[in-house]
Amino acid sequence: MGEGRAWLLVGNIAAMDVDQLGPDAFADLRRVVDGRWADVRAAVREQLPPEWCRPVGDLDREAQRAVTLERAKVLAGWDLPRRGFEKAYGGEDDIGGSMTLYEMLGLVDLSLMVKAGVQWGLFGGALQALGTRKHHERYLPQMMTLELPGCFAMTESGHGSDVQSLRTTATYDVERQDFVICTPDDDARKDYIGNAARDGRIAVVFAQLVTQGESHGVHAVLVPIRDERGEPCPGVRIEDCGHKGGLNGVDNGRIWFDDVRVPRDALLDRYGQVAADGTYSSPVESRSQRFFTMLGALVRGRVSVGGAAAAAAQASLAIAVEHGENRTQFARPGSDGEVTVLDYLAHQRRLLPALATSYALHFAQGELTSDLHDVQTGGTDDDARQRELESRAAGLKAISTWHATATIQGCREACGGAGYLSVNRLVQLKADSDVFTTFEGDNTVLMQLVAKSMLTSYRDHFGELDTMGTVRFLADQVVETVLEKTSARGLVDRLAAAAPGRDDDVNLLDRDWQRELFEWRESHVVAGLARRLRRAAKGDGADMFEAVNRVQAHSLRAAHAHVHRLVLEAFSAAIDRCDDEDAKALLGRVCDLYVLAEVESDRGWFLEHGRLTPALAKAVGRAVDDLCRDLRPHARTLVAGLGIPKEWLAAEVAKAGSS
Amino acid sequence: MGEGRAWLLVGNIAAMDVDQLGPDAFADLRRVVDGRWADVRAAVREQLPPEWCRPVGDLDREAQRAVTLERAKVLAGWDLPRRGFEKAYGGEDDIGGSMTLYEMLGLVDLSLMVKAGVQWGLFGGALQALGTRKHHERYLPQMMTLELPGCFAMTESGHGSDVQSLRTTATYDVERQDFVICTPDDDARKDYIGNAARDGRIAVVFAQLVTQGESHGVHAVLVPIRDERGEPCPGVRIEDCGHKGGLNGVDNGRIWFDDVRVPRDALLDRYGQVAADGTYSSPVESRSQRFFTMLGALVRGRVSVGGAAAAAAQASLAIAVEHGENRTQFARPGSDGEVTVLDYLAHQRRLLPALATSYALHFAQGELTSDLHDVQTGGTDDDARQRELESRAAGLKAISTWHATATIQGCREACGGAGYLSVNRLVQLKADSDVFTTFEGDNTVLMQLVAKSMLTSYRDHFGELDTMGTVRFLADQVVETVLEKTSARGLVDRLAAAAPGRDDDVNLLDRDWQRELFEWRESHVVAGLARRLRRAAKGDGADMFEAVNRVQAHSLRAAHAHVHRLVLEAFSAAIDRCDDEDAKALLGRVCDLYVLAEVESDRGWFLEHGRLTPALAKAVGRAVDDLCRDLRPHARTLVAGLGIPKEWLAAEVAKAGSS
Repeated sequence: MGEGRAWLLVGNIAAMDVDQLGPDAFADLRRVVDGRWADVRAAVREQLPPEWCRPVGDLDREAQRAVTLERAKVLAGWDLPRRGFEKAYGGEDDIGGSMTLYEMLGLVDLSLMVKAGVQWGLFGGALQALGTRKHHERYLPQMMTLELPGCFAMTESGHGSDVQSLRTTATYDVERQDFVICTPDDDARKDYIGNAARDGRIAVVFAQLVTQGESHGVHAVLVPIRDERGEPCPGVRIEDCGHKGGLNGVDNGRIWFDDVRVPRDALLDRYGQVAADGTYSSPVESRSQRFFTMLGALVRGRVSVGGAAAAAAQASLAIAVEHGENRTQFARPGSDGEVTVLDYLAHQRRLLPALATSYALHFAQGELTSDLHDVQTGGTDDDARQRELESRAAGLKAISTWHATATIQGCREACGGAGYLSVNRLVQLKADSDVFTTFEGDNTVLMQLVAKSMLTSYRDHFGELDTMGTVRFLADQVVETVLEKTSARGLVDRLAAAAPGRDDDVNLLDRDWQRELFEWRESHVVAGLARRLRRAAKGDGADMFEAVNRVQAHSLRAAHAHVHRLVLEAFSAAIDRCDDEDAKALLGRVCDLYVLAEVESDRGWFLEHGRLTPALAKAVGRAVDDLCRDLRPHARTLVAGLGIPKEWLAAEVAKAGSS
Repeated sequence: MGEGRAWLLVGNIAAMDVDQLGPDAFADLRRVVDGRWADVRAAVREQLPPEWCRPVGDLDREAQRAVTLERAKVLAGWDLPRRGFEKAYGGEDDIGGSMTLYEMLGLVDLSLMVKAGVQWGLFGGALQALGTRKHHERYLPQMMTLELPGCFAMTESGHGSDVQSLRTTATYDVERQDFVICTPDDDARKDYIGNAARDGRIAVVFAQLVTQGESHGVHAVLVPIRDERGEPCPGVRIEDCGHKGGLNGVDNGRIWFDDVRVPRDALLDRYGQVAADGTYSSPVESRSQRFFTMLGALVRGRVSVGGAAAAAAQASLAIAVEHGENRTQFARPGSDGEVTVLDYLAHQRRLLPALATSYALHFAQGELTSDLHDVQTGGTDDDARQRELESRAAGLKAISTWHATATIQGCREACGGAGYLSVNRLVQLKADSDVFTTFEGDNTVLMQLVAKSMLTSYRDHFGELDTMGTVRFLADQVVETVLEKTSARGLVDRLAAAAPGRDDDVNLLDRDWQRELFEWRESHVVAGLARRLRRAAKGDGADMFEAVNRVQAHSLRAAHAHVHRLVLEAFSAAIDRCDDEDAKALLGRVCDLYVLAEVESDRGWFLEHGRLTPALAKAVGRAVDDLCRDLRPHARTLVAGLGIPKEWLAAEVAKAGSS
C-alpha cells in the first residue's frame, strides 16, 4: 500500500482472519442477512428438493413445461404460496413471507418462480386486490391449490408499457346483463400471457369498460378461456408464443376474444361497479386515480421480480467464486504451483464488487419487502406511503435486474468454458433472468417513472408517463417547489463549494462521507432535471416532445442516484443491526466496496461536476483494488453468508475448459 | 441545438437527406463496406439458403447437431471452404476469402460457423501449417470435402490459456518406431474439443513430445479417434460435454488417450522431426520460439472469431433498428399518433453508438483480414509483421467479441419481449456468440498479451504470459526503451501541458483532434504501465506476483487504448476510400459517433488525467446526443449499408410483447 492511503490500514479486516469468523460472528451475519422472514427462508431450504436446481436445457419445451407445472403443484401442497392471502381463505396475511418465497425460488428455478408468480402473485393477487367477497369465496381457494390455473391478461401486442391505452373492450349489454369481451384487431390481442399457452383455465382480462355507451377506462374482468378438457372456450382463440430465450417452462401465449360473453359479476368490482341497469359507479372518483389504484396491485410483482433476479445473481456469484477458488492457471512466480484464478486482481474485480452490490441489494430488498408487508397488511390508507413504495419497488426492480444481467454474464465469463456448460447453471440463470429487465415494467420506463415521482414528491400518481401532462404539471407547480427546496443553482454552487472532493485527505471509508456523496449526487441531478424540464415546459407539441426527450438521460440518472442512495441507507441500517463486532466490521468493508465501486463507475459524472478531484477519483480506483484484495480471503465466507445450500449450487464447477 | 455547439451545423448531414442517398452514393458506401472480398460476400449472399438463419432452439441437441453437419456438408460442396488452402490441393491460396466466409456465417448460423471453423480453420489449418507434404497429400483433400471430419485437440481440462503447460504426452518408442499418446489423468483429458462428441474421426492432438527420454515441448500429432463405423478407436475414450449455453449444433467432447499408438509419420513435423532412431531435430532452434511459431496457426481462428462476432452484432442491430422503426408506444404530444420508439433518445443511445462501433470494427476487421492474407500468402518471413498481426488479431478479437456480447444484449432489451422470442433471432445470436469472449483465447488473457507486445515492441514472442520472465525482460531492457521513446513523465507532462482539453473551443468533430486524443491515451497508458512494471521488477517471487498483479487493470486499459487507436485508423482509411462525397460525409458522421461514444464511456479516465476539462467532457456527452439525433433518420440506410440480405433477418420483429 502506497503512501497517502494509510486509512486502509485502519480496521483492516484482513488482519482479523474473518475466514474463521467464529461461530457467533458468522451466526450473527447469517441472522442479519436472513432478516425478518428467516423462518420462510429456513422452510424453503428445508423443503425444496435440490434437484430442482438442475438445468433443464436438454428437455424440449413441452417437457420443461410439464416439469414446471409438476413443481408448481408440489409448491401448492406446501403452505408457502397461500401465506400471502387473507386468513379467511386459508392464508396467513403474510405478504412478506410470500415475497420471500419468490425471492428464494430465484436461487433455484426461474421458470417455477415465474409460473408461481403468475398463478399466486398476478392472477391470485388481482383476484384478491381487485375482486370482492363473491370472487374471493368462489375463486381464491381453487386458485391457491392450483386447481384453477389462471392468467393475468394485461399486456397486448400493441401496448405493453402504456397500459392505459389497451384496446380490448368489455362492453356491458344491459339486455342480457352480461359483458361482451372483444379483441378489435391483432394489435389488441393479449400477448406474452403466462399460463395461457397450455395450463390456464381462466383469465383476469384487462379491458376498456364500456357501459351505457360510455368508456370508464381499464378494468379487470374474469373470463374463462379453457374448458374442463383443456379446449379453448367458444370465441376464445389461443396461440403459443413459442420458444423463448429462457423461461421455457412457462407457457406464454396470445389470446383473442371474439365477442365472448361473461356474466355481470365477472367484473372484479372493488374499484368500479356496473349495476344491472348499466349504471357505472366507483368509490374512487378520478378515473386516473382509479386506474393507478388498480395498477397498485402490480407492486408485488415488481418486488418479487427484483428479488428473484437478485437471488439469481447471488447463486451465480456463489458458483463463480467457488470456481475461482478451485481453478488455477499459469505458474506462480516463486513457487512450484499455479496461480489460483481468484488471486488475479482482474478476476477479483469481476466478482467481488458484484458480490458487494449483491449484499447491498439484498438488504434493500429486505427493507422493501418489509415495508410492503406493513403497508399492505396495516390497513393503512396512507397514499403517500403507497406511492413511495411503488416508486421504490420500480426503481429497485430495475437496478436489481440490470445488476443480475451484468453479474451473471460476468460470472459466466469468469468461469470460461466451464461457465458455458449448462450443467454449471450459469447459462440457464442468465437465459432465464434475461427478460426480467424488460417485463413487469421495462426498466427504462420504470426508471423514468421513478424520476417523475422524485420531482413530484409522490404527490402525483405513480405509473403515469404522459409527457405533456407531466411537463405541464411540473411547469405549473412542482418544479418551483423542487427548485425552492434545493435552491437550484444556489444549492448546487454551495454544495460544490463545500465539496470535500477538493480535499484529497478525505477518508473514503467514512460512511458519512459516502452517504453525503450519494445524497449530493441525487439532489444535484434532480435539481438539474427540474430546471431542464421547466425550460422544456415553455415549448409546445412536437417541440415539447423534443425538449423532454433530451432530458431522458437525466431522468435515468436521477432515478439511478435515488435508488442507490436508498440502497446505501438500507445497507447501513443492516450493518447497525449486527450485534457481533467482527460481523459488523466485515459487512462494513463489503459496504465500502459497494459504495466505492459505484462511485468509480460513475466517476466521470462526479469529475464533471467538480465533486471529485482527479486525484481523489484515482484514489477511489485504487481503494477498490485494495478492498478487493482485502476481501479476497473472505470470498467464500461472504458467499456462505448468503445462506445458499451447497446442494443448490452447480455440481461440476470443476476446472473443465476454463481459461 | 444550444449555443456553443454551432460546429454541429457544419456539414450537418441531416440536411443532406442521406436517406435518399442516391444510387451512386449508396453503391459507393456498399463498395467501401464490402471491401476487398466483395466477391466472396456476393457469393455467400447468393448461395446461402435464408432458412439457415432460422433459430433452432426448439430442436433437441442431437437434431441441432444433425442440422449443423448437414449444412457443413452443403458448404463443403461449394468452393468457398477450400479457398484458404494451397492451389496444389484444390484451394485458391485465398486466406482472406476464407476469413470472409466465416465472417459472413456469423450473420447466419454461429454453430455452423464454429463447426466449419473447427474443420477447415483449426483442423485443416493445423494440417496445412504444421504438417508437411506427406500429410498434405494424404489428408487435405478429404479434409476439404468433409469426408474426414477432424478435431483440433489442444485445450485440456486443466490447461486452456496456458497451452505450454499441457500434460498429454506423445512418447517415441524407438523399438516399435511409433508414438505412444497418453493422458496422464483427468486434468489432462482433452476438453471442449469441437467435432469430438459425434462426428470427428481423427484429431490433431497437442502433446508434450518425448523422445530419447527428453521432452521437447508441445507438438502436434495426428491420432485417429473413431473408426469407419463411428466407434471410438481402441484406447480412446470420448465423452460428450453435454448441453451448452449455445452452439448446441457443435458436438464438443472430451477425449482420453490410454497409450494409443500412432506411427512415426503421424507427427506433424514441419517445425520438429523425430528420426527413426529417435533423434529430435527442428529448423527452429529455440524451444520457446518453436512453440510460438506453431501457435501462430491460431491467428486465423482468432481473426475469424472476431469477425463472426462482429457480424452477429450487425445482424442484431439490423433487427433492433427495424423493430425500433416499427414499434410505437405512448401518445406523441401534439399529434394523434404514438411515438416511434427509435425517436426516444434513450433508444437511440442504446442502438446508434453500437451501430457506429460496428462500422468501425468492420473496417478494422477488413484491414486485419487483408493484412493476414498478405502476410500468409506473401511468402514473407517478416517476423515482426507476423507478431504485429498476432497482437492485432488478439486485441481485435477481444474488443469485437465484447462488443458483440454487449450489443446483442442491448438489442434484446431494446426489443422488449419481442426480443426474447426465439423467432426474432436475438436470443440465439446472444447465446451462440456468448462463449466467443472466452474461447480461442480468453479475452482478458489476450488483452494482457497485447499489452505485453506493446511494451516489447513485438520483439518478444507473442503469446507468452510468463509473469516473472516478462518482468525481468522488461526490467533489463525494454522498459528503458519504451520510457525513452515516450520520455516517460516528461512526455506525459508535455502532452498534458499541450492538451487541447484545456481549450473548450475545440472542435469535437475534427478527426485530427480525435486521432490525437486516442494516440495520447495509448502512449500515456503504456508509459505508465512501463513505469509500474519497472518498479515491480525490483521485487521477487510472491512480492513480484503481487506487484505485477496490481498492474493488470493498466494492462487491460493499455490494450484497449491500443486497439481503439488502430480501429480509428482503419475507419479513417475507409472514409478516405469513399469516392462519393455524400457517402463520405455520412461515414464521417458515423465515425464521429464511434469516437465520441468511446470517449464518453472512458471520460472518467480522460478527466482524471487532465486530458478533458469537465466542460469538454460534458460537451462530449451532448455531442453524442446530437449525433444520435442527426443519424437517427439514417438508421435504416446505415443498416442497409451493411449489406445483410433482408431474408436473413428476423421474420417477426413485429410489435409483439415489446415494452
